[in-house]
Amino acid sequence: MKISADTLKKFSEKKVAFIERMGLGVVESKPRYVKLKAPLEGNENHIGIMYAGALFTLAEVPGGALFATSFDTSKYYPIVKELSIRFRRPATTDVTIEMEMTTEEIERIQAQADENGKADYILEGEIKDASGEVVALSKGIYQIRAVAG
Amino acid sequence: MKISADTLKKFSEKKVAFIERMGLGVVESKPRYVKLKAPLEGNENHIGIMYAGALFTLAEVPGGALFATSFDTSKYYPIVKELSIRFRRPATTDVTIEMEMTTEEIERIQAQADENGKADYILEGEIKDASGEVVALSKGIYQIRAVAG
Repeated sequence: MKISADTLKKFSEKKVAFIERMGLGVVESKPRYVKLKAPLEGNENHIGIMYAGALFTLAEVPGGALFATSFDTSKYYPIVKELSIRFRRPATTDVTIEMEMTTEEIERIQAQADENGKADYILEGEIKDASGEVVALSKGIYQIRAVAG
Repeated sequence: MKISADTLKKFSEKKVAFIERMGLGVVESKPRYVKLKAPLEGNENHIGIMYAGALFTLAEVPGGALFATSFDTSKYYPIVKELSIRFRRPATTDVTIEMEMTTEEIERIQAQADENGKADYILEGEIKDASGEVVALSKGIYQIRAVAG
């Protein structure tokens, strides 16, 4: 069973109130690819630029979204082990992030989880402002684990 | 001019809507020390544990809170350059974080900013659940910069 793009959309936008409250939206999603957007409005810090926690959340969500469209969700579930974010310049507009994985990468990770019960993988992302400038860089360490049974 | 604990309380709880929306609260704040709390309710992810972005935000806010009570805010302003968070175990209760700095550390950082216009410093934190278990560990690289003038 693979989760449909429609389910993913619901997952990404609605299922976690924390994410919903910041107005995070799906620009495009398809298997192994996701592009998400976060509005500046409502997510400003005390000096009017986008707050670090909003940028972090935008960088974190693609991990779950890619899992939902790309992995066999009947056999594995994902956890985020670690996430680092480097703030390169102030975000003064809405921002987006794109992330994708290759089929080979996904197959390799799933094969490793079949053998060991779990497999780590890294997802790196760039958050860009409306002019295409990179405002933040993220590196997440995720793990899929085989569902017991 | 040092910002009062009352102002800090406002800063920490109210000034950034993103932080306010997650119900982050000040348990205790005094110069060079802050303890903050985040409720599980409203911050759950799709499987009912605290969402990563809420834990990140709880780990990030003490940097600003410590700046406001501990540094000379008429001469410097802070930025967060980078923040890593490692998720050690699921957070299934409200969580807290405590952070403190020594007078010596603050004086050293301010002296360096006086000389170079800026100074980096690291703040490490542990997020604990209601039973005192560490659920996440954070490491932030902050920088104070001298106000122009």
